[in-house]
Amino acid sequence: MSWLDLPEDSLFGVANLPYGVFEPEGGTPRAGVRIGDLVLDLAAALADPVFDRPDLNGFLAQGRARWSEVRASVRDLLTDPGHRPRIEPLLYPLDQVRLRLPFEVADYVDFYASENHATNLGRMFRPDSAPLTPNWKHLPIGYHGRSGTVVASGTEIVRPRGQRKAPDEAAPTFGASRRLDIEAEVGFVVGTGSALGTPIPVGGFAEHVFGVCLVNDWSARDLQAWEYVPLGPFLGKSFATSVSPWIVPLEALQHARVAPPERDPEPLPYLADDEKWGLDLRLEVRLNGHLVSRPPFSSMYWTPAQMLAHLTVNGASARTGDLYASGTVSGTERDEYGSFIELSWGGKTPVELPDGETRTFLEDGDEVRITAIAPGPDGDFIGFGEVTGRVTPALGD
Amino acid sequence: MSWLDLPEDSLFGVANLPYGVFEPEGGTPRAGVRIGDLVLDLAAALADPVFDRPDLNGFLAQGRARWSEVRASVRDLLTDPGHRPRIEPLLYPLDQVRLRLPFEVADYVDFYASENHATNLGRMFRPDSAPLTPNWKHLPIGYHGRSGTVVASGTEIVRPRGQRKAPDEAAPTFGASRRLDIEAEVGFVVGTGSALGTPIPVGGFAEHVFGVCLVNDWSARDLQAWEYVPLGPFLGKSFATSVSPWIVPLEALQHARVAPPERDPEPLPYLADDEKWGLDLRLEVRLNGHLVSRPPFSSMYWTPAQMLAHLTVNGASARTGDLYASGTVSGTERDEYGSFIELSWGGKTPVELPDGETRTFLEDGDEVRITAIAPGPDGDFIGFGEVTGRVTPALGD
Repeated sequence: MSWLDLPEDSLFGVANLPYGVFEPEGGTPRAGVRIGDLVLDLAAALADPVFDRPDLNGFLAQGRARWSEVRASVRDLLTDPGHRPRIEPLLYPLDQVRLRLPFEVADYVDFYASENHATNLGRMFRPDSAPLTPNWKHLPIGYHGRSGTVVASGTEIVRPRGQRKAPDEAAPTFGASRRLDIEAEVGFVVGTGSALGTPIPVGGFAEHVFGVCLVNDWSARDLQAWEYVPLGPFLGKSFATSVSPWIVPLEALQHARVAPPERDPEPLPYLADDEKWGLDLRLEVRLNGHLVSRPPFSSMYWTPAQMLAHLTVNGASARTGDLYASGTVSGTERDEYGSFIELSWGGKTPVELPDGETRTFLEDGDEVRITAIAPGPDGDFIGFGEVTGRVTPALGD
Repeated sequence: MSWLDLPEDSLFGVANLPYGVFEPEGGTPRAGVRIGDLVLDLAAALADPVFDRPDLNGFLAQGRARWSEVRASVRDLLTDPGHRPRIEPLLYPLDQVRLRLPFEVADYVDFYASENHATNLGRMFRPDSAPLTPNWKHLPIGYHGRSGTVVASGTEIVRPRGQRKAPDEAAPTFGASRRLDIEAEVGFVVGTGSALGTPIPVGGFAEHVFGVCLVNDWSARDLQAWEYVPLGPFLGKSFATSVSPWIVPLEALQHARVAPPERDPEPLPYLADDEKWGLDLRLEVRLNGHLVSRPPFSSMYWTPAQMLAHLTVNGASARTGDLYASGTVSGTERDEYGSFIELSWGGKTPVELPDGETRTFLEDGDEVRITAIAPGPDGDFIGFGEVTGRVTPALGD
C-alpha cells in the first residue's frame, strides 16, 4: 500500500508504476512514473541522470536487471512512509504537466496478429479469395511502418490527402481521405537490442522487451486499398501513429498472462511457445466519449514473444526504442472490433452512437480515445494510459 | 584544377567531392570529402565541430545554403595552391582509413520505380495477372524498410534463415534462404526535414535532399515470395541493406540531369514534373569481379523528386537522415537487369561467368560490388563510391 491516499480501485497503484516522459510547467522534459493521478520525477527521486532526458531510451538500454531494480526502488519510495517527506514534493499532478512521446522510436513494425481482424479485412479487401492468405497461420505477418510519424497521444491528426480510386471509378483522383479509420492496437517497446545476424528466440522476449503501450494506427482505407498491392500499406498508414504516454513494464503484467488460443497447424519450432505470453488486456475504444468497442487482446492468435522471434529470425537486429505493434485487436463479436472498417463493415452498416449520430468512418472533429485495463494482483486491475487523437480537416479544406 | 596530382580521368576530382565518414588509424570517426584516392578531414580543414562527429546528420540538417557554402570552400581549399601547405597534411590515403556508414538513417523507404524491373517481377511473381498492377503508372509504389539494418559497404552479409515454401510444397519449411539476391539501387539522403502535415512538393526536392548514394537491397526471394501477401516484403528484405560510403551531393549531378521517360497516363498534378530530375547514372554490377550487368538509372519511370513528393503528400514528415531508394534499376536488356532473379529469370537461365562458373542466386562466399558513374562537366565523368558485400554462411551452417 502506498502512503499516498489513492482510491482503492485506482488503476495506477503501486502494482502498476508505468514510465513516461513529462514536462512540468517551466521545466525540461524528464522521465517519470505515474502513481494515481500524479507523476514522480525520477531524476530527482533516484538522483540518476539517465532519467533527466526527454526520452526513456537511456534507461531502456540498461536492461532487465536494472529495470527490476528501479521498479523495486520506486515501489519502496512510494510505500515506505519514511520516504514521504522527501518524495512528496517530487510528485506533480498530471493536469499540471505535459506528457510527451515517452521514447525515441527506432524502427516501427506493425503486425497483423488478430485472426478475427485479418479474416474481416480479407473478406472486405479480397472478396473473391479465402479471407486468410495461405501464410497467415504459419507466421505472424508484419510490415515496417514510419517511425518518424509515431506521435504522442493528444497530437491532432490532420486528415491525410492522397490518391484513392473506388472499384467503379476509371482512374484515381486526388483529395482528402474519405475513409479515415483507427486501428486499436497494443505496442511493445524494445529495451535492449540484439546484434545483426543473431535472432532473439521466443524465450528472449522478457529479456529484451521493456514494456507495453497502446497504439492507434490511424489508417486511410481508401488510400490503402488503392496503393497496397503488391508492396503493402504505405501512405494509407504513414501520416500518423499515436502511442499512449505510459509504458507499462512487463513486470506489472505478470497477472495478465494467459494461454494464447490453440494454434492449428502447429507453428514451426522457432515460433513454439516456450512461455505463456498471451495477455488479458481489455481495450475500450471511445468515439467522442461514447464506448463503441471492447477489443480483447487475449484473443490474439500470435503472442508478442512470437512476433519478436519472427521479426529477428532472419538475423535482423533489434535496437533500443524499437516499437512493434500487434495489429488491430478484434474479438469475434461486432462490439469487439478494433476498427471502423470492421464496425461499419466497410461502410455499409453505420455505427449508431447514443446521441443519435452515426458513423461509418471518422469525420473532422471526431476524437478517438483508446484505453485498457489488465488483471493485477489480488483481483484488482491496472490501467494503461489513454491514447487519444482528434481529427482536423485536410490541408486546403 | 586541383593542386593535387590527380589522373585526368579521375572519377573523384573537384567536380565530385562526395561526403563520407572515415576513421583514421587510432582516431575517432569524422566527416571527410573524397578527392582522388584521398580523404580530406573536414573538421580540421574547416575548423567546424559539426564535422567532428561519427555521422553527417548535423551537417545535413544545416540546409542547402550551407551545403553550397561548404562545397565552395572545399573546392577552394583543393584548387588554390596557396592552401596546399595547410591542407595537404589533412589528407588521408583511403587505404589507411576505415569508411563508416556516412549518416544515421532515420526512416528508410524503398520504391519500385523501374518499369522494366516491376514488369519482370510481376511476370515471375504473379504469372496469371497483368505484370504491372493497376496503380503502378499512377503513383511511385513504395514501402518502409528497416532502417536499423542499413549497413556500411563492406559489411558481411550473413545468409538469412526463415520460412520458405515453394508452390509445389504442402507446407513451409525453415532454413537458410536458397534464393539470396541483390537489388542494385540508387539512394537519396534527406538533409532538411519537413513538418508533420506539410507535404514537400515535387519542386522541393533539391531544397530537402542532400545527395545520392548507391544501395544494395539484399533480398531473400524465397522468404519474400511466401510472406509478402498481403502486407508486402518484410523478412525477405530486413536482414541487411548496404549503402555506399560516399554521398554525392546533388550539386555534383547537375550535368547528369536528363528528362525522364514519357509518362502515360499523365500523373496527377501533385506528381507533375516541374523540373527535369531524371538522372543519367550508369551502374555496374560485379559478381566476384566479373561484370554481370549495367543498369541505366536514366530509364527509371519515376524521378526522385516525384518519389519525395509522393512520400510526403499524405502529410508524413521527413527527417534529416531519411533514406529513400529507387528500387531495383533495370534496363530493357538482360545485361541491364539489376537483380539475379531477373538475370537468371527466376533461376531458370543461369548467368554464365567468364571463369566458367554459373549463378542463379548468390552462393556463400560470393562478393557483389556495385559502382556507378555520371556525366560531369566538360565531357568528364564523376564516380560513386562502390557498395560491396560478401555472403557468409547462414547461422548453424
